[in-house]
Amino acid sequence: MDFYPIAIEKLIEEFAKLPGIGHKTAQRLTLHVLNLPREEVKEFAEALMKARGTIRYCSVCGNFTDSETCAICSNPNRDESTICVIEQPKDIMSIEKIREYNGVYHVLHGAISPMSGKGPDDIHLKELIRRINGSVKEIIVATNPNVEGEATAMYISKILKPLGVKVTRIAHGIPVGGDLEYADEVTLSKALEGRVEL
Amino acid sequence: MDFYPIAIEKLIEEFAKLPGIGHKTAQRLTLHVLNLPREEVKEFAEALMKARGTIRYCSVCGNFTDSETCAICSNPNRDESTICVIEQPKDIMSIEKIREYNGVYHVLHGAISPMSGKGPDDIHLKELIRRINGSVKEIIVATNPNVEGEATAMYISKILKPLGVKVTRIAHGIPVGGDLEYADEVTLSKALEGRVEL
Repeated sequence: MDFYPIAIEKLIEEFAKLPGIGHKTAQRLTLHVLNLPREEVKEFAEALMKARGTIRYCSVCGNFTDSETCAICSNPNRDESTICVIEQPKDIMSIEKIREYNGVYHVLHGAISPMSGKGPDDIHLKELIRRINGSVKEIIVATNPNVEGEATAMYISKILKPLGVKVTRIAHGIPVGGDLEYADEVTLSKALEGRVEL
Repeated sequence: MDFYPIAIEKLIEEFAKLPGIGHKTAQRLTLHVLNLPREEVKEFAEALMKARGTIRYCSVCGNFTDSETCAICSNPNRDESTICVIEQPKDIMSIEKIREYNGVYHVLHGAISPMSGKGPDDIHLKELIRRINGSVKEIIVATNPNVEGEATAMYISKILKPLGVKVTRIAHGIPVGGDLEYADEVTLSKALEGRVEL
């Protein structure tokens, strides 16, 4: 159905390739772009090219960066003796938002998942082991609280403990502001298990 | 909060400018783009520039086109004696989809709306009047069935009837597959008013 000129159809198609954007939304976004000032569209296109062109992974931790090491790894005020291990660069932002963690990070870029054929060699684990030296005191494993994340956490603890480094896991429990009534059994059981004295 | 390099923040910002895309979605789309092959991102950026750069309005009807006149106006098989008047170029697609209309179109690029200070001179009405000649037999007004669309339809009929051209309005009524129970009063009243003999 070629009701639109090719250039429009092409842009609709490109928008529809993005995750969570269907054909109708892609059409609406395209019509919006056609009504924008030429300068703004150019800025958008350039932002796309620039982001993909200049962004790479930090050579130390695997976070996004536009230079050799990321803003966190190159900050002398961060405590390098504590490494928080996460699955994706975006998880760094979630933890940075609480403004309480002052250590550094290590991005695995995935999790161990036998179901999808992802083993320990398919994530950045070797890079993590290489970072362990006398000055590293604690590894906080903050992988996601699902099957893959738990398996990864177990594996990390198994290979790092023999190296004499303390490995901890973020706590599972009832979310603050949550409701006991709506908590699932596994979470509730974890919350009981991890109870602390008041 | 500059957790991300500037190039990422900038792209998130650009995505968030699109209608219906919030900051979270913009962030997800940006991270998706960062994981795409460089070639695909380039294609997306080029599609953006090309759509905005080559698309203009048809000099006859106001539809989108990449040449002087649009695909419909330059099609010799279309019946030029019937002009369907719609508010936006995208409405053409809705009507073309039914594959039953063989006339041509006229895009108003808006509707008369005193509430937002839009009068008859702010929409492409003069261009419509200029198209009326001896060979035009019918003007089908297919503006939206809301206050602005109805006001525009009334206005068009008022100025075109003296020129001796037949002006019709698309029917209002119960949508096919709809339910009488859920029809609003105005629609139901319009459906009764426009009843046809079986």
